[in-house]
Amino acid sequence: MRRERGLLIVLSGPSGVGKGTVRKELFSQPNTNYEYSISTTTRAPREGEVDGADYFFKSREEFEQMIAEGKLLEYAEYVGNYYGTPLDYVNETLDAGRDVFLEIEVQGAAQVREKVKDGLFIFLAPPSLSELEQRLVGRGTETDEVIASRIQTARLELEMMNLYDFVVENDEVQLACDRINAIVTAEHCRRERVEKRYLRMLEGE
Amino acid sequence: MRRERGLLIVLSGPSGVGKGTVRKELFSQPNTNYEYSISTTTRAPREGEVDGADYFFKSREEFEQMIAEGKLLEYAEYVGNYYGTPLDYVNETLDAGRDVFLEIEVQGAAQVREKVKDGLFIFLAPPSLSELEQRLVGRGTETDEVIASRIQTARLELEMMNLYDFVVENDEVQLACDRINAIVTAEHCRRERVEKRYLRMLEGE
Repeated sequence: MRRERGLLIVLSGPSGVGKGTVRKELFSQPNTNYEYSISTTTRAPREGEVDGADYFFKSREEFEQMIAEGKLLEYAEYVGNYYGTPLDYVNETLDAGRDVFLEIEVQGAAQVREKVKDGLFIFLAPPSLSELEQRLVGRGTETDEVIASRIQTARLELEMMNLYDFVVENDEVQLACDRINAIVTAEHCRRERVEKRYLRMLEGE
Repeated sequence: MRRERGLLIVLSGPSGVGKGTVRKELFSQPNTNYEYSISTTTRAPREGEVDGADYFFKSREEFEQMIAEGKLLEYAEYVGNYYGTPLDYVNETLDAGRDVFLEIEVQGAAQVREKVKDGLFIFLAPPSLSELEQRLVGRGTETDEVIASRIQTARLELEMMNLYDFVVENDEVQLACDRINAIVTAEHCRRERVEKRYLRMLEGE
């Protein structure tokens, strides 16, 4: 019987929002059911970083060859170094029926969105929404400039989140993890997915 | 600031699947965040049943007047008695920003689906899918008739679940409750919902 393909889960969000912290907390939990997709980079390993665990460390030439051969699901250059997601690992893991978890920058998430239509895209948002709400309610306690700048930030976040399926507020790391886990559980219960399992089984007849 | 409207959660499924048991377990949990919508019926109270808690007990005339006045979200007649969901309570609770939980028969769910486009429709499925999978794998240990009848049941369930958003297998009551809670949590994180909250707030300016 053919196995159900795994889900590609993409966690992204504005820089500084705490994506790495949330991802580490998710993977420190004993019941985590996702495979973490290790990124590849041309930057030098930092002290304690292990090749194949923290990153796949590559030379610039190797990385550019991967780009040329279409072996990256997404990549970007930051301060002179490449970072990317190896495509083979992702595909093999999904084909084996396991969910793959990517934690990447918004530019990378946009590239993945183009290629993987049925991925699960989660935007990690700073708790600015609730904070803004409080600030607007408690008006008078903030200067107009502070409020204006908050509103500007909220507008930018609103634009950014446009290509995502879900928005998780990172008010507390554990709560953010719970929400992400709930989103993945719910996705596995989507009628279309369950229906496909039924059909595959009945047609396997 | 205007409150976000609550979610209408509809749990249904084939009769005998355990909808009532799952609903009771959900509402016995301390962290349940839904309001249970009490049904109205013309059947006589059974021993221990309390008007306004178990059901709103009505006469046949009162019930038919509710139908005539469009005061029921859905209703059906079973063995000579009417059962229905009072519309006012549902609307008032949703408007107050709280989620409302309905546990109803599939015919009623179909009526609600017509009227409430943004409801969350959850189909509670018997564990027949997984059981069927095992039976097909362990072929030879079952007669052809047993397998054929199982396949027939699976096809009927497949047709029934067509108008639902999610399918939750009732393999274990607690697991089914966890999945339902996850689906509701995920729904509150849907980008469209969060976006609306942002926009309302920014436009409330």
